[in-house]
Amino acid sequence: MAFRASARITEDWQHFGFAVADGVATVTFSRPEKLNALTFDVYADLRDLIAELPHRGDARVLVIAGQGRGFCSGGDVEEIIGELREMDPAELLEFTRMTGAVVKALRECPLPVIAAVNGIAAGAGSVIALASDFRLLAQSASFAFLFTKVGLAGADMGSAYLLPRLVGLGRATELLLLGDKVDAATASSIGLASKVVADADLAAETSALATRLASGPALAYSTTKVLLTRELDMDLGSAIELEAITQALLMKSADHAEFYAAWTDGRKPRWTGR
Amino acid sequence: MAFRASARITEDWQHFGFAVADGVATVTFSRPEKLNALTFDVYADLRDLIAELPHRGDARVLVIAGQGRGFCSGGDVEEIIGELREMDPAELLEFTRMTGAVVKALRECPLPVIAAVNGIAAGAGSVIALASDFRLLAQSASFAFLFTKVGLAGADMGSAYLLPRLVGLGRATELLLLGDKVDAATASSIGLASKVVADADLAAETSALATRLASGPALAYSTTKVLLTRELDMDLGSAIELEAITQALLMKSADHAEFYAAWTDGRKPRWTGR
Amino acid sequence: MAFRASARITEDWQHFGFAVADGVATVTFSRPEKLNALTFDVYADLRDLIAELPHRGDARVLVIAGQGRGFCSGGDVEEIIGELREMDPAELLEFTRMTGAVVKALRECPLPVIAAVNGIAAGAGSVIALASDFRLLAQSASFAFLFTKVGLAGADMGSAYLLPRLVGLGRATELLLLGDKVDAATASSIGLASKVVADADLAAETSALATRLASGPALAYSTTKVLLTRELDMDLGSAIELEAITQALLMKSADHAEFYAAWTDGRKPRWTGR
Repeated sequence: MAFRASARITEDWQHFGFAVADGVATVTFSRPEKLNALTFDVYADLRDLIAELPHRGDARVLVIAGQGRGFCSGGDVEEIIGELREMDPAELLEFTRMTGAVVKALRECPLPVIAAVNGIAAGAGSVIALASDFRLLAQSASFAFLFTKVGLAGADMGSAYLLPRLVGLGRATELLLLGDKVDAATASSIGLASKVVADADLAAETSALATRLASGPALAYSTTKVLLTRELDMDLGSAIELEAITQALLMKSADHAEFYAAWTDGRKPRWTGR
Repeated sequence: MAFRASARITEDWQHFGFAVADGVATVTFSRPEKLNALTFDVYADLRDLIAELPHRGDARVLVIAGQGRGFCSGGDVEEIIGELREMDPAELLEFTRMTGAVVKALRECPLPVIAAVNGIAAGAGSVIALASDFRLLAQSASFAFLFTKVGLAGADMGSAYLLPRLVGLGRATELLLLGDKVDAATASSIGLASKVVADADLAAETSALATRLASGPALAYSTTKVLLTRELDMDLGSAIELEAITQALLMKSADHAEFYAAWTDGRKPRWTGR
Repeated sequence: MAFRASARITEDWQHFGFAVADGVATVTFSRPEKLNALTFDVYADLRDLIAELPHRGDARVLVIAGQGRGFCSGGDVEEIIGELREMDPAELLEFTRMTGAVVKALRECPLPVIAAVNGIAAGAGSVIALASDFRLLAQSASFAFLFTKVGLAGADMGSAYLLPRLVGLGRATELLLLGDKVDAATASSIGLASKVVADADLAAETSALATRLASGPALAYSTTKVLLTRELDMDLGSAIELEAITQALLMKSADHAEFYAAWTDGRKPRWTGR
């Protein structure tokens, strides 16, 4: 992998399951007895893993999944909220900045991210799914942006930026102010779920999408994702210019040449992702 | 109420019904014989009431409703359009700035705003509903952004800013250029209505939502609304930073402490809104 | 027509069909044997026609349609992709800037634009439809933002700016990364189609909408469209100010005066578009 600095790749992520196979990196939240409630350690590991992931060289897509009955129930009431009660403003801000950094990393990560939501995605868990590029939902899955129910702002980790840009300001207002549960069918109808599948099919559907992304034209996928992120914050003229320059670069890529060669030969392209 | 200046709270709003009870402020358009068509006075009162409302100290949510068969049919053709025919550019601009100031005030108001739309919401009436946070619609209610039908721009009072951010650019283009009527079912399916209820249930549903908002964690609701408004105009990184700082503040709030105490005790929180 | 410079109006657009009748300008892609695949010439003509159109003085609305079985299948694989293989970065950038300029022109054009999508709208064809103001779809029509399938970025000609603003970030991510086909019913449900009609009715429905726009209050339509484009890139306060100033101008228009006169007389307005 090009451009590595002195730091070594982290070999052991201790606070969630982590594996890479065939270009697919998978994070599995692994506190099933707590519906995968987040601890300080999980946030910190997630923030750093996402930053490191593109430098590993072996991953082209990231899957985030939950072990057991839920995806992620958000910050652990005892291990996070209880601890926060004792902190001063500077420490609190360090914490909230860390949680926001996870979302910023997810949105800026050049790899596409798939959240495989098998059950409840609540609080920070719902925002991690929201910040992913694809949200595959089991039929029994649900979202709950429940921050106001614990007396906090519904605007957390970028939710008040992202959610209106997915489902519109009206629906985002309702979901973030009230914090009520959103079932999978509703999530699908408003654009919050990419796809809803039978509970039993979630792992296979996730794997199929991840494999498709990992074995496809990775540079094309990656630039698409990065430009989608950036162009939310750009004006029309600048966005068109950025796309013109990016596409000129991609026209010099091996994968675009491969497409044309394959088309000429009447065969399927063999993508290298370069 | 803290930080009051010399001006006294206005005791008499002459151009619509106004009442505050149990934290719920209610504005009732009260020209039912004209489908609550707006006059210059109604706009001016609305602009100033919304600015004053947070300073009263007795209101945590604002409900806007219409007396009689409609919500609000927009600017009165005789009393507004007729008068405007006689005005010079400077006066016209004073008027259009006043109408825009109503929408700006609604969006910047730290209280959540509920529009209870019982019948037609047309022209400026549709934009007032659009600028509210929740739109509860009776089944027989409808919207009509009918500005082009009177020869004016469909971009009025911020409608061309707000509507695409609720329903997407394609649908907003159709609604604002053509100005056709949108029934309640369509409004719901595109994200323009928060909820559609039977005509007979509108008052009770509005009251239930208002009571929920007024008796809940008001600071959490308020910051959520304000950040939703602001983050439409912010980039990802700035939005995440704003949310981190806001949430650190909220973690020092009485309501968040109360949530934790209630959770520890196994009881429901008693919100104070502080 | 006011404010013409030295350049003459182009009398012959050689690379697509072009006609103006009763205020309706129509571009018809005319390589039906290639599903109207685009050539360098078509892009260049389209870019310049859209810039010139408002200066002709005889057109108030632009219709873009496709001859034969499809709307537009995007850049011709042989005549564009094949040629691009031989180009250096500077030439490639000239090309991608030209394609982006078509979309910029469509969005900034003061005339409303209707895409009449009769069959496949793929690649650049899908973005031309996306950049139009109205998308009327035949039941058998479909979109395919298939750029990644040829190894290029899904962000092309502004698609990664426009699509999230029509259908939300989640759905746009799916459509642009995967490049799969979107049928007419799906396009309608997510806000990508203005209307879906029976295949046999597409021409008549397009004509009816175009006639309505061409015979209506053109200045009101035009300012609405221009402000919708601009306010995507403006903050709330600026947008409200722009609308206040625009509406004050429109209040001095002949059409607004005509509305009031017609209303007073109890007759229909006779719009002049001024």
